[in-house]
Amino acid sequence: MKAEIISIGDELLIGQTINTNVAWMAQELNKIGIDVYQTTVISDDKDHIITAINEAGNRVELVLITGGLGPTKDDITKTTLTEYFNTKLVEDQEILEGIKERLKARNLEMNELNRKQALVPENAMIFRNYWGTAPGMWFEDRGVVFVSLPGVPAEMKGLMTKYIIPAITDKFKPPVIIHETILTMGTIEARLAEILSEFEDSLPDVIKLAYLPSTPIIKLRLTAKGSDEKVLRELLDNQISKLYKVIPDLIFGKESETLEQIVGKMLRERGQTISTAESCTGGNISRLITSIPGSSDYYIGSIVSYADRIKTDTLNVNPDLIKEQGAVSKDVVIQMAKSVKEKFQTDYSIAVSGIAGPDGGSDEKPVGTTHIAIGTPGSVVSYKFTFGSERDINIHRASLTALNLLRKIILKDKGFRKKSSTKYG
Amino acid sequence: MKAEIISIGDELLIGQTINTNVAWMAQELNKIGIDVYQTTVISDDKDHIITAINEAGNRVELVLITGGLGPTKDDITKTTLTEYFNTKLVEDQEILEGIKERLKARNLEMNELNRKQALVPENAMIFRNYWGTAPGMWFEDRGVVFVSLPGVPAEMKGLMTKYIIPAITDKFKPPVIIHETILTMGTIEARLAEILSEFEDSLPDVIKLAYLPSTPIIKLRLTAKGSDEKVLRELLDNQISKLYKVIPDLIFGKESETLEQIVGKMLRERGQTISTAESCTGGNISRLITSIPGSSDYYIGSIVSYADRIKTDTLNVNPDLIKEQGAVSKDVVIQMAKSVKEKFQTDYSIAVSGIAGPDGGSDEKPVGTTHIAIGTPGSVVSYKFTFGSERDINIHRASLTALNLLRKIILKDKGFRKKSSTKYG
Repeated sequence: MKAEIISIGDELLIGQTINTNVAWMAQELNKIGIDVYQTTVISDDKDHIITAINEAGNRVELVLITGGLGPTKDDITKTTLTEYFNTKLVEDQEILEGIKERLKARNLEMNELNRKQALVPENAMIFRNYWGTAPGMWFEDRGVVFVSLPGVPAEMKGLMTKYIIPAITDKFKPPVIIHETILTMGTIEARLAEILSEFEDSLPDVIKLAYLPSTPIIKLRLTAKGSDEKVLRELLDNQISKLYKVIPDLIFGKESETLEQIVGKMLRERGQTISTAESCTGGNISRLITSIPGSSDYYIGSIVSYADRIKTDTLNVNPDLIKEQGAVSKDVVIQMAKSVKEKFQTDYSIAVSGIAGPDGGSDEKPVGTTHIAIGTPGSVVSYKFTFGSERDINIHRASLTALNLLRKIILKDKGFRKKSSTKYG
Repeated sequence: MKAEIISIGDELLIGQTINTNVAWMAQELNKIGIDVYQTTVISDDKDHIITAINEAGNRVELVLITGGLGPTKDDITKTTLTEYFNTKLVEDQEILEGIKERLKARNLEMNELNRKQALVPENAMIFRNYWGTAPGMWFEDRGVVFVSLPGVPAEMKGLMTKYIIPAITDKFKPPVIIHETILTMGTIEARLAEILSEFEDSLPDVIKLAYLPSTPIIKLRLTAKGSDEKVLRELLDNQISKLYKVIPDLIFGKESETLEQIVGKMLRERGQTISTAESCTGGNISRLITSIPGSSDYYIGSIVSYADRIKTDTLNVNPDLIKEQGAVSKDVVIQMAKSVKEKFQTDYSIAVSGIAGPDGGSDEKPVGTTHIAIGTPGSVVSYKFTFGSERDINIHRASLTALNLLRKIILKDKGFRKKSSTKYG
């Protein structure tokens, strides 16, 4: 069973607003086994609206329409739908009372524009909007359901969750769809596709594999679709187990997990702590780790040693080392990782020094050259990478690569100890 | 003149990815006077792609298509377009060399899938992709231009900026449109609209004002549209001078400038330096400053004192002060700013301590409470803010607010000295 989503609004067509509504709606429809065939953004124009809903109604059985329901002149969705479905507007007493209540709670007077929002098409099913003033409307025509909702995300989501999703499930009794997303890092898409070619060819017909690259991460999405949830679940679980066996070193997580979440969870479970010493990433690793609520449980702090004199003065890097080997070198980054771990008394540490670009590269050390060291309870290990030529991408790749190296090391580090409940501010 | 944008990708239709590409593309087209009539998202399906481009080509003169150009099996845009435009695939030596270079720089071997990306439709104009491997393609058919681009945002943006926008301008010679964007910070949209009400009413007919809020920044975009560039330029410049007089304290820059760029430029011109001491922003201010190429000329480093013991041990904050007033307090943040400035020997410093949330708030200090201190060559000044309840927005607002406070202080600081050419690593 297929659906389409039509978003009405000039603000979307001039690029002022990013259309986050469709992604959310598509996810909700997917969860109940409805495929979104197409999504369309059109202007607040009567002919355009009529053409779009007409075309969508010829292709699918469910059309969700958002936007154009505000009280102002440029919002014409309601009058257009009323005309298209050959009905008329009548005042709905319950909706009117709802609007009155809402305005009263905010000490606002009812005006003509608000009153207009209680006018609803006579032949539509009407859903009260508890999150705003424009009600939701459900039309049926030639066996197709058309639902009109406000474009304000909170209002659309409220109406969808409370009324529309249950009503759709009730009406269409849709098939079962299960998605699983596996997160990988450590190779490029073309190479991964090569490695997985055999796995992909052997997938059962009801399961599809998609590659979703977002450098340096490649997400693998497996989708199972059918009628028996239990059977699909088992088929999917089997394939996922198989996938873990084919690329154990490349998988770092699943669904919408991030590396900073995964690493944070591991450290919290083990009662361990981490600090960072950053040069070319300039605080980005620290920012990623602290973007997670509650990260103060395991993150102690960072020294961003951007100038070389901070590397020597605060992180005790030997000045001769910098003179001889350069600030972007294996020994410097090892010393940075050691120092910050000792200084901040943490179990682990991350240190990064590289040439982010665009300037500063040489034949010997081109832009993108990056050294990463991970301090562990027992030792320090270091790695060298050559990323690309773009500054922001280099910083991003160096940060995620460092977090992934840390993750792998913590995983191998079996001898961890659960600390007593020491809490850090 | 009208355009449509077609995004191809199942990940958009299941709601896994939010379609940010269309907003960016629509903005770019708008800047050169092209209206986006409709945007459509469709699946990686041959018939669907053909139907969609056929319909769009009947409505508008320019169709931009993104996505489905990866090397894997599920990406079928290129073969579909080749068939639709009745041509065949041929190997493009220049594109092949480009892909080879790109892979070589990353120490990767060329495989069959990569090689396939150098196959291009014979009758299309081809644009090399410096940001990835799939080239851009430009077809002309029945007087309509169809452009196919990769869906990866950085690749699409790179190709659009370098080749497609200039080629569109050249081909369609759209009307003269001049945009100027003025950046403001320090008030909310409703209040700003009130302050600018008179200014807005007095604008000449050919100039339009748009509010583009992106908390805590509100961009004001002035657009002049007509036929005579010189006349429009003069009209626009006059209005901008007027605007600077109406809200001098709120304007911090223009166009796509960022606060970190502006502050960096000011410091470089003055030969001055800065350091940071961050708690709740967790390295985000440091990351912003170092995102600018060449920031090592003025940025020395940061101490991210996430745990209180780093505030006391490394930043010399009196432990009693933290006990009595809490880590989120005026005196603590002043001490942090002083310490890092002395320790790192810089002209300025920024220190931030706050409750980012979601936990850690109290009646006295709710989530969002944030203290910011700016260390200057002569003194330290501090400020208190109460932002909102969302962790990521609090971190973002605290970071930009701190940079804006620094900017205002540097501006007022007339007695600056131009240092001799001391260079920091």
